[in-house]
Formats: sequence, C-alpha cells, structure tokens
Amino acid sequence: MMTITVDLGARSYPIYIGSGLLGHAGLLDAHLRGRDALIVTNTTVGPLYLGRMRGMIAHGRVSTVELPDGEEHKTLATTAVILDALVQHRLGRDGVVIALGGGVVGDMAGFAAAIYQRGIDFIQVPTTLLAQVDSAVGGKTGINHPGGKNLVGAFHQPLCVLSDSETLHTLPDRELSAGLAEAVKCGIIADAQFFAWCEAHAAALLARDAGALNHVIRRACEVKAEVVAGDEREHGRRALLNLGHTFGHAIEVCAGYGTLLHGEAVGAGMAMAARFSQRIGWLAAAEAGRTVALLAALRLPVRPPRVEVEPFLAAMAIDKKVLGGQLRLVLPRTIGHAVVTAEFPLADLRAFVRAELAA
Amino acid sequence: MMTITVDLGARSYPIYIGSGLLGHAGLLDAHLRGRDALIVTNTTVGPLYLGRMRGMIAHGRVSTVELPDGEEHKTLATTAVILDALVQHRLGRDGVVIALGGGVVGDMAGFAAAIYQRGIDFIQVPTTLLAQVDSAVGGKTGINHPGGKNLVGAFHQPLCVLSDSETLHTLPDRELSAGLAEAVKCGIIADAQFFAWCEAHAAALLARDAGALNHVIRRACEVKAEVVAGDEREHGRRALLNLGHTFGHAIEVCAGYGTLLHGEAVGAGMAMAARFSQRIGWLAAAEAGRTVALLAALRLPVRPPRVEVEPFLAAMAIDKKVLGGQLRLVLPRTIGHAVVTAEFPLADLRAFVRAELAA
Repeated sequence: MMTITVDLGARSYPIYIGSGLLGHAGLLDAHLRGRDALIVTNTTVGPLYLGRMRGMIAHGRVSTVELPDGEEHKTLATTAVILDALVQHRLGRDGVVIALGGGVVGDMAGFAAAIYQRGIDFIQVPTTLLAQVDSAVGGKTGINHPGGKNLVGAFHQPLCVLSDSETLHTLPDRELSAGLAEAVKCGIIADAQFFAWCEAHAAALLARDAGALNHVIRRACEVKAEVVAGDEREHGRRALLNLGHTFGHAIEVCAGYGTLLHGEAVGAGMAMAARFSQRIGWLAAAEAGRTVALLAALRLPVRPPRVEVEPFLAAMAIDKKVLGGQLRLVLPRTIGHAVVTAEFPLADLRAFVRAELAA
Repeated sequence: MMTITVDLGARSYPIYIGSGLLGHAGLLDAHLRGRDALIVTNTTVGPLYLGRMRGMIAHGRVSTVELPDGEEHKTLATTAVILDALVQHRLGRDGVVIALGGGVVGDMAGFAAAIYQRGIDFIQVPTTLLAQVDSAVGGKTGINHPGGKNLVGAFHQPLCVLSDSETLHTLPDRELSAGLAEAVKCGIIADAQFFAWCEAHAAALLARDAGALNHVIRRACEVKAEVVAGDEREHGRRALLNLGHTFGHAIEVCAGYGTLLHGEAVGAGMAMAARFSQRIGWLAAAEAGRTVALLAALRLPVRPPRVEVEPFLAAMAIDKKVLGGQLRLVLPRTIGHAVVTAEFPLADLRAFVRAELAA
C-alpha cells in the first residue's frame, strides 16, 4: 500500500492506494473511531463491493443508501435522498458519510456531507479510475444543474481517500480510458516524465496491469495533491486542472449528457486545447501530435462530435472558467507545462471551433 | 451610522447599523465594485423596500427573485428557485447575492450563495429585528428538513450586513417581540449590564424608539460578533448562542411550525432553561424570576404550549445540540453567564419537562 498526503494544514488527509485494500480490516479505524456511518453507493457498485465495505467497519452503527447509477442522477433531488437517509438514520454532527462508487457518488455524497448539519466528515472510496485519479481528490463536491455541470456544490475535504485498484477489474473499457484521460492531463500540465511514462505503458494500462494502474493512480494523485495544496479554492493555479474541460463541457452539453463519458469529453477537449494552442503558435506541432496520439492510443476520442457551432460557443461561455465575463482557457505551452489565460484572440477561437466542428 | 466589525481574519466583515440606511447611495459600492447582483427577497418585503435597495446599486446588472413569505418555504425546493435564478441571470463566480428580508430570506439566500459555483459572495440586508440581532450575523445559513430545523446548510460569511432600523416600523408587533427575545439572550449569556438596560428600556423598545432599537441591535451584534469570532464553526463557545433553542425547537416542532414565531419559541425556551437551571440549583430564584419577567414584559410567551411529553423529549434529542448521543443544554448560571453542559441528571430533565407541560 502507498500513502500520499494532501497537504492542507488542519484539513490534510491521506490517500491510500493499492490492490485489495477494500475489505482490509482496521484500515479505516483511525478515521472512523467507532462513529456512526452512512455508506452511499449505487445500484451497480453496491452489489459488488458493499459487503467488503461493511466488513471494514467494526464499530458504530452502519446504514446504507443505494442511489440509481448515472450522471443524469447527479442532481439536487438525489442529494435530497442522501439527506433524508442521514436524518432517518439520525446521524449526528459526528457522523461520517462514506462514498463508495465513482465520481457521481463521490461528488454527491461529499456534497450531502458538506451541507448536512453544515458539514460532517466523509470518506472517499472511489471505485472507478476517473474518481481515483481525479474527482475523489481535492475536495470539490457538487451536483449538476440543467444550466451546467457542477454549478452547485461545496469545497469539502474528505477524512481520507481509499483507492483499491482491484475494483478496476470490474470497470467497463470505456470508463477505464475515461479515467486515463484525467491522468494524462496531469502529465500535460505538470510532469513531462509522467506523460512519457504513459506513452510507454499505454498497453499495460489498457491490459489493467496492477503495477501500472497503481503507478498511474499514485502519480496523478501526487500532481493533483500538489496543485490543490497550493490553491485549495481555485483562485489561481488549481484552474490548470481544468485543461480540456472548457472544450469538454461544451462537447458534453452539445452532444447531450450521457452520449460521452466525462473523461471521454475531457480527452477530446484536451486534444482540441492542444490543437488550438498549436494554431496560435504556443505549442510545437510535434507536442500537439504526441498529445493527440497518446489520447488515441488510450482509446479516447480526439475530435469533437458534429454539433452546431453557436450552441458550442455558448456552452463554452457559461462554463465556470469565465471570470468577470472574460473567457479563460487552460492551454499547454509544452508537454509538462500549461497556463490559464485569456490572452488569445477570441476571433481565432471562434474560427478554430468552426473548423473543428466542420472537420 | 454605527459600524461593528466581526473579526474573522480574512473573512472579517462590517455590520452597518442606523436609521434610514436603506437607499443610502454609495454605501455598498466598496463591497459590490460594479459586479452583477441578484437580490433575493419575498412577496412581503419586496413591495416595501426593493425600490430603495435597487437604488443603492449604481453599476452592474441587477436581477431580482421574489420568494413566497414564511418559514414553511425555507426548503431545498425554494433554494432551488434561487439557484435557478442565479443560472438564468448567468451570474459568474464574481456575482453577489443580496438577501433583503428576514431570517428566512437571509438563511436561504446565504445558503444558495454558499453552494452556487461552490460559493459566491453575499450581502445581508435584514429587515426584521430577529435577523438584525441574530440570524444575519455569524455566517450560519441553511434550510429546514422535515426531520428538523436548519438540518441542512453551510457556514458562509457575508461581505457585510446592513441593518436599517427604519424597516422595523413596518414590522408586526409579534415579530418585534420575537427579535427582542434573541437580544435578551445576548444579555443572559454574556452581558448583565445589557440585560439590565433591556429591563429599563422595555417600554421604549416596544414603542419602537429609534435610539433604543439602534442600541439593542448594536449591543446584540457586538455580543454575537465576539462569540462568533472566537468560535466560527461552533466547536465550543458559540453553542452558548443556542440558549433557549433546544427547548425552543421542541416547542416549535410539537406546536407545529408556524404556530409560534421562532423568537417566541426561543423566548419560552429561555424561560424554561432559566426554570430548569433554578430547579437543579444553578440559577438563583431571583435571577430566574427577572429572566421570566423581562421576557413577559417584552410580550413573549414564557410557558410552553400544552403538548405531549414524549414527542417533546424526542424533539429535544434530534436537535443538533446532541453530540455523540449525549444531550447538551445551554443553561444560565447567573444573568450574564451561561454554560454548555451535559452535567445534569436526565431524570431531572424528564421530570421538569413533564411538570412544565402539565402546568
């Protein structure tokens, strides 16, 4: 087992990474300390891992709430179901919420924990690669609104994150690739060596080699932890983690939620960001090429779907990366270094989007 | 105009108190800085003060959402109405929510601001005495759940609080008294002199004398600001502000929400806390008597309604003041000093509640 620490002063917490951690008796004892817990999971993950999860909790009352599976359920209404369960099982301020599942479960369970009694503790047990490398780390919780993704939420740091790479054996291929997209992102924004490692180990990752998966989770978490520690509430540098997300959100909105997985949309969005950065002369053609090639090798889409231009541009502008009315993008300068910037000609962006969607 | 500062480091903020502040051009400019704003008000307060409120905002886009009036609307569903308005009017992360109304509007608008885009700025413009002396100060925001009051919410400090005592001229008598209950509470827990001042000025307060009202708002805010500054997230001393609230919540639940105003229930709850403290030998009979007499002079109920004993006790236990399964109460030791304690015989409490409800 490897342990990474997210360094946030009084809110610091460990990420435990390894194969077969779920069911490991005693691992959570120091965090739970016998307190009452509510496990939040969904109808897909529950039947697979709920037994092992409950087996880790020796003391305290344990209750469970099982949500429907799918991003379309990441709503205020489903959050209310979790809140109802917390009230029904009479969890006090010292209660603990345990999120067992992918990013949707983690985001919603974390949000419910953030607002129940104005904030109780929670633990992330991510069971998808996307959640293990990205959404379970960093304290962003929230839900979607018909007007946009993650428009409602809270910053709420977990007590700990437990990532068992064995759970990835039951993950569909598309979801594995979607998770790898967010890992590659960490390489592009902050670690050229890790990017090269991913290029060299693409086949091992797709074959779900345990060592390769544990390494990719660890290195992605280390990059993310370092970025989050420097900017917990995204006033600056943390926005780098949104590489590919502005294009990606527009892809998700215009293609219709559920058509693409979030990680797939981010993959295509990162390819677009690389090509746009190349177009305005910021990223070398060879590096843009490597970026697109790695994403493709990991079986991710690298082109946006064929959608209308104007709704796409509109969807980019409602995105949270707009600050004071000005559209800011995360763009790679080289592999291993990206910037958050509004210093590009909007006309270029419009022409670029037009050309991409016509391609 | 008087200004009190709530000292919370980077989240410190001023409370402006005076007669005729609403409509005072320029007063909010330093806080708004031309940013887009959404004014949240209700159907009672909007027609009275929305014009003056809008007149204070010279720059930036201003939108409004008017909610139905009443505690029964302090729900997740009504919060969703505010969130929808924020999305519809496309407020960005730099947008500002302005809460114009009583405690219900302030609690909900503040909660919506706390969770929209994981937290945007908000300003409190309380128009009831209860909100001016209590709910608008301290950063507690939230909504009710069928299982209990304020079970869902967030700590979110405002940019500033603007309390115009002129708005109290349109306040119903019962609501004036309800607000005075929370002010008297500040005297009991922390300031015997202020308590004595309230005894001497009860008639002036009920007559809505401007000087008396401004003083009571100021002194209550000073006490609350001092307590909150020492314990923003209620790990300890802040719980003193819950004097009368555990009994009071049980009164509200058992009488049925809406039968009594919150401040009225707290008034009766403080009278009960004083009598219980006297019963277990902690508060002198004379001081318990003065407490009940002042509350009565301010036209507040000092007895619980005739309700069933068991549901009353059950309602006390679900309350958030229960920590780790142990019921903690705030009890006065003298006028001017109270303690948060679980050091009383539960059997005494049961017998006391039984006697009170049978009286």
